[in-house]
Order: sequence, then C-alpha cells, then structure tokens
Amino acid sequence: MSDDMIRVTYLLETPGDPRAAAEKIAADQSTGTFTELPGETEALRARHAARVETVEPLAPQDQPSWPEAEGPVNRARAVIAFPLDSIGTDIAALLTVTLGGVFAARGLTGVRVLDFGLPPAFACHPGPQFGIDGSRRLTGVTEGPIIASIIKPSLGLTPDETAAVVRSLCEAGVDFIKDDEKMMSPGYAPFEPRTSAIMRVIRDHAERTGKRVMYAFGISAADPDLMLRRHDHVVAEGGNAAVVNINSIGPGGMAFLRKRSALCLHAHRNGWDLLTRHPSLGYDFRPYQKIWRLLGVDQFQINGIAAKYWESDDSFVRSFEDVTRPIFSDADRALPVVCSGQWGGQAFETFRRTRSVDLMYLGGGGIHGHPGGPKAGVRAIRDAWQAAGQGLGTAEACAASPDLAAAFRKWGRASDR
Amino acid sequence: MSDDMIRVTYLLETPGDPRAAAEKIAADQSTGTFTELPGETEALRARHAARVETVEPLAPQDQPSWPEAEGPVNRARAVIAFPLDSIGTDIAALLTVTLGGVFAARGLTGVRVLDFGLPPAFACHPGPQFGIDGSRRLTGVTEGPIIASIIKPSLGLTPDETAAVVRSLCEAGVDFIKDDEKMMSPGYAPFEPRTSAIMRVIRDHAERTGKRVMYAFGISAADPDLMLRRHDHVVAEGGNAAVVNINSIGPGGMAFLRKRSALCLHAHRNGWDLLTRHPSLGYDFRPYQKIWRLLGVDQFQINGIAAKYWESDDSFVRSFEDVTRPIFSDADRALPVVCSGQWGGQAFETFRRTRSVDLMYLGGGGIHGHPGGPKAGVRAIRDAWQAAGQGLGTAEACAASPDLAAAFRKWGRASDR
Repeated sequence: MSDDMIRVTYLLETPGDPRAAAEKIAADQSTGTFTELPGETEALRARHAARVETVEPLAPQDQPSWPEAEGPVNRARAVIAFPLDSIGTDIAALLTVTLGGVFAARGLTGVRVLDFGLPPAFACHPGPQFGIDGSRRLTGVTEGPIIASIIKPSLGLTPDETAAVVRSLCEAGVDFIKDDEKMMSPGYAPFEPRTSAIMRVIRDHAERTGKRVMYAFGISAADPDLMLRRHDHVVAEGGNAAVVNINSIGPGGMAFLRKRSALCLHAHRNGWDLLTRHPSLGYDFRPYQKIWRLLGVDQFQINGIAAKYWESDDSFVRSFEDVTRPIFSDADRALPVVCSGQWGGQAFETFRRTRSVDLMYLGGGGIHGHPGGPKAGVRAIRDAWQAAGQGLGTAEACAASPDLAAAFRKWGRASDR
Repeated sequence: MSDDMIRVTYLLETPGDPRAAAEKIAADQSTGTFTELPGETEALRARHAARVETVEPLAPQDQPSWPEAEGPVNRARAVIAFPLDSIGTDIAALLTVTLGGVFAARGLTGVRVLDFGLPPAFACHPGPQFGIDGSRRLTGVTEGPIIASIIKPSLGLTPDETAAVVRSLCEAGVDFIKDDEKMMSPGYAPFEPRTSAIMRVIRDHAERTGKRVMYAFGISAADPDLMLRRHDHVVAEGGNAAVVNINSIGPGGMAFLRKRSALCLHAHRNGWDLLTRHPSLGYDFRPYQKIWRLLGVDQFQINGIAAKYWESDDSFVRSFEDVTRPIFSDADRALPVVCSGQWGGQAFETFRRTRSVDLMYLGGGGIHGHPGGPKAGVRAIRDAWQAAGQGLGTAEACAASPDLAAAFRKWGRASDR
C-alpha cells in the first residue's frame, strides 16, 4: 500500500449495484457533479479523483435501512482511496471530503463508515497529552484499574453539597472523580465556585492522606474562550483533569483546547449513539475514536459489560480494543473508561474479554447506591477486580468479600447477564 | 408558557409505552441514574427535574427503526421541559442535556428531535452578523434572488486555473461565487495563494465594472487558530465571505469564528444527512438550524427543488420556511441558499412554493455546463426567476428566453419533476 492515500472503508446498501454506488461516491466526493463539465479533464481526474479499490459483496438485507425503497437491498464493503494531496491532514477536510456528501447520495439506502486508514502524515496531530501512562502517573495508580466515581445525583447539588459528596468519595478510597457530563455551569452551581469548593476538598484530602484524587471538571462550553477560562481556573486551583463533551463542542473546540491544555482530557461521547446505533448507518466507533484521539483525547468513555444503555457487550469489547490499539504509536492510545451501570460484578467478564487492567473503572450508582455506603461500594469494586485478575469466579470472590456479596445481592440479578 | 423552561419536542418510538419512555428520558437527563440514590430527594427533583408536558400518540409503525425489536412499535410526539436554571444558555450544555443521552436509552427503537423551544435568555447568542439584509448590502443586489455559482470542477484546479474560472463567472454576471465545500487547503491549491489569485480577479472586475462579486472562501479547519488565519487573509485581500463546513468544525469552531469574524458566513451542512435522513431518527432540520443561526450562520445551504441528493421537495420547502422564520427577531433569520442541481428550471416551483425572492440561487453545473457557456447559464437563471416572479409558466418563459429554452432542452427531462 502506498503511504500517500487516505483509505475509507464503507458499508454500502443499495437496491442497485453496490460497485456502481461506490464509483458514484468516489466521483461525487472528488471532481464530479451532476452533469459533464468542460474543465473535468482526464488528466485532472487521474491526479485528484478518489478511486474504488475493493468492493466485497455481503449478504443482501430484507429491508432498506433508510426507508426509501422496497426491500431486499444489496450490501457490500467498499474501500475508497482518496489522494492525500487532495485533502491534506486537516481533520475538518478529512471529514468533509470523505464523509460530508456520502450520506446524501441518492440511490443508497444505507451507508456506514467502518474505518479510516490514515497515512503517516496524520501523525502531525497532537494526540493524547497524557493517555494511559499519564493517567497512571497523575493518579499514582501504578497497577490495576483506576477506580473512579461520579457525582450523584448528577444535577441539582450546590457547590457545597457537591463538595460534601466529593469528600465522601475521597474517604471511600476512589482514585478519580468526575462531574456528570451534564454538569457544566448551571445557575445553581456555577463552574468557578463549584470547582473551588471541590478542589479545597481534593487538596485537603491530599494533605491529610498523601493521596491526590484526580477530579475531572465539566469545562465544556460551545465558546472555546469560555472553555479555556474554565480550564485555567481548574489549573489555578491545582486540578489536573476535565470532562469534555466532544460531540457538543466539536472538532474545533477540541483542537483549540488541546493546544492550550494542561489537563488530562476525559472524553464523554454523548450524542454518539445517534451516529452509530443503527447497524447499517453512520459510523463504527473505530473511525470515530481515531479522529478524537488524534485531536487529543486522553481518556475515552466506552460503556462496559451489561451497560445501562443499548450498547451490546460485544460492541464494548471492540471499543476497548479500538482505543488501546496504536494508530501511529503507543503514545496515541487512550485510557479506556469502562462505565455505565458498573458496580463490580462486571469486572469478571470485563477481564475475561479484554485480559487487561489498564483501564479506568467508573462506578456511579454502584458506589453511591451500595447498601453499605460508598466506602463499601469502592471495596466491592476493588475486591471484584482483584478476584477477577486472579482468575477467581464470582462465587469465590463473594465468599471472600462481604461488600461484593452485598453488591451482587442488590444488582446481580438485573445486570449479571 | 413560562419563559424559564427549555422545551424539546421529541418523536419517540418504542415497543413499550411511549409515555413511560418520555418519563425515562426526563429522569435520565436530569437527576436520575439506574438505581435509587440517597441524595436524590423530592425537593431536589422538584427544582431540577425535567418534566414531561405532553405526550401525543401517533400511529404505530410496522417495523422498529433501530432493528432491536420485532415490529410493530408505538410512536408518540412528546414535549419535555427542562428548567433553564439547570442548563443555562450555553449551546454545548443544551445539546448535552437535552440530546446527549437520549439516543442511548434502552427500550427505545427510535428518537427524533423535532424542535427546540428556547426561552428569551437564548437571545444572548450573537446570531447572524449579516443575514438576509447584510447579504443584499454586501452584494449590492437590492431585489430578486442573489445569483450564485461555485467553482467547477470542485477539486483539482491550481490557484491560477481557479482564478480563470472566477474570471469567467464574473464576466458571466453572477453576484456570488464560492469554493466547493470540499476545497479548503489541499497541497495543489493552498489556501493563501488561491485566495490571493481569486481576489485579484474579484478586485479587478470591481474596478472595471463597479460590481463587487461576493466570493465565499473555504476557510474551514479543525484548528480554529488556523481557520482564523485564513479568515484574516481573506479580509486582508478585501474579501467579504467564507464557506464554513459547520459539522466538520462543530459548535466550538463556529462560536470561536463568529466572535472574531468580519466575513459573511455561508454554512455548508455536509454530514447533516446522517443526522436527518431516516425519518424516525436524529433531528429535523428545524431544531438543527436554530442552533447554527444562534451561533452565527448568515447564509444557509438547504438544497432546492429537484435536488441531486435524496432530500424531497417538501423537506426543502420546510427548510426554507425554517431559516427565514425569526427565532427572537428578524435579524436572526438566515439567507436561504437554494442549491444542488439547480439550473433555472426549478425557479418556477421554488417561487410557487415559497412566494419569496429573498434567497440565494446557486447553480454549479447548471451554469458551467450550460450549452451556451456560463454567460448563457446565468442569463437562463435570471430569465427563469424574472418569469417565475411574474407568474409566467415555463413554456412562456422559454419562448422569451433562448438560453432558458436551451437549459430546458438539456436538463428539463431529468429534473423537471
């Protein structure tokens, strides 16, 4: 493979011929339009046109995904190569040229982007500033999962009430705490006073115990200047992390922040489900997360086993593999944040499927809602991971840990699938 | 209606009870999680919880839109009200709280956002700097549509070759020209030299004829600093407009640019089709365009009658109404840019459906590919709009305009639907 082409893998669905659909995408996304043009010479096409490299037929589908035709419809996996010289390495250009018009094409009843194959020139992007190693360094967790929690209730607490929850979580023994992704700067808990109140607790806990809990503050704002002021306030208070709602700020907000950031950036992908939930439309997580890692995500929320949302366990496991597979180097891997309805019981299946403890394990309700309180909730999770890493089963683990046993009694039936 | 609530209208689809689904969204997106929490008191819920205001049942659907259940599925239109105090006026907060988790909820097989009802506090956003009136002022087109074209072939031309196309379009009599949305800064036509070469032609034409053609340059870049440098270069060269790929830069890029912009911002929404094409998933254009107008879009591309893409004429007509309906005042309306496969023949149906000439009419292939050349292509379009505005039919219009007649002969069969 030459190194000066951008290769995009598409899943195409059409009542017609998938190869013709691929050829149409290649033409529309480079030099063509709806009618012949005097200036579109063969020489120009040869230099700048996108080329269909492979079209692999797949089984037809009974119903079209966009309901614009009567089923059945044909499907194929197609690789289209775009000359790097026609796009460059800018992420906005990449998205516009390779995806922008693709979802608009008439005659298709479904398009899904399965992967980006990016040439080495894309290594120009900053990538994660901290990633897996930096997250371990900043939290001081040198082995095993980084155990994390979130403020609950997610909305509604004043700065002082939030600080009290933070104190309880610090005392419960977590390594990391985060604002709920919906918490940015509401009227009842504005960003600056809330951050200051929380950081007083974090600093005090560090002075008393020597343990500096990482707290990720919800700095997201559509206005990058405002987001940067929030970032600077966190830095001034001695904080070291931030929650970034990547879809709500977009590539521009992320690129702006990463260039100026001193914080570990914890990505929440809310809104992503719309882009991926229909299996024949939108994006796989694989190409999506590559873009955001190149833009600078350090920690990536990817749900978990038996999540409370729609996503399947298999999809989570693929996401785990995706964020930890280097794009250009080990340094561009993101720390996988295993989350959503986690309470410890899922540690066994998570470890069995990923064989990894290089992860953050985030329990919200699973810690706050543990029958023995947050401290017991954290112990249950740590015990679960220790047992899982030793290859123990859940029965043995529960026998050795009353806190884990209590968690299984409360949540085991609903989520232990 | 009170003025301190944000009201979101959702189309919900579920094998279960749509009212229960609406209640679940309201809970998940405010104070709740998957388990009962000690701190989630009734008082806290009363202050901060989102509330389901109405649930209007719709006809069931045979098949689920996300293929996660067996059909049929129930559908309803639901309005959920979020307290302004819990979100604030930040666009990123609005998107995260009202939409972020909604597409993730288990048990739903489809969600579509139909509208945002925004309280007056959202008038704090800058909105369009130029809009409809400013676009007329800058182009000097005081009445009738602003006639526009685009560089074709869209990719592959060097700066000098592009400048030659611009000269031909200026001489053909257009009011506005734009870079193709895929043209930003490729290796063979870097942004600065291309812009300089084009602006020499624009300035020269203005000096010779007194007519200053508006040119919208493709300044989009994921890095807002780079985008701003491109903006500044356009300003330094005497230009007055830019194409912005809003989905590729995101709200952050747009907010950053708008605060610093001296240019008329022409929005290309490429990528939007993924968000809207399935009729039960994603967003209607109505809520989407409100966000982008508040962020500062002056001119909004919305396809047109008989577009080359999948979008229906009815959808285009609704979009036209949407972008020209004030959110808070007349000044926040965007200029509708009627485009995609336009060559003049669609002027009649466009005027019949919209009763408006406050628009930009953008012909690419329809001008470059006219059998009589670009000048005849522009005349055909102007003649079509004049005839349409006078209530003439296409036969009368063609009898009076050989150029329009030639366009009908070339494209009338394919697009005159």
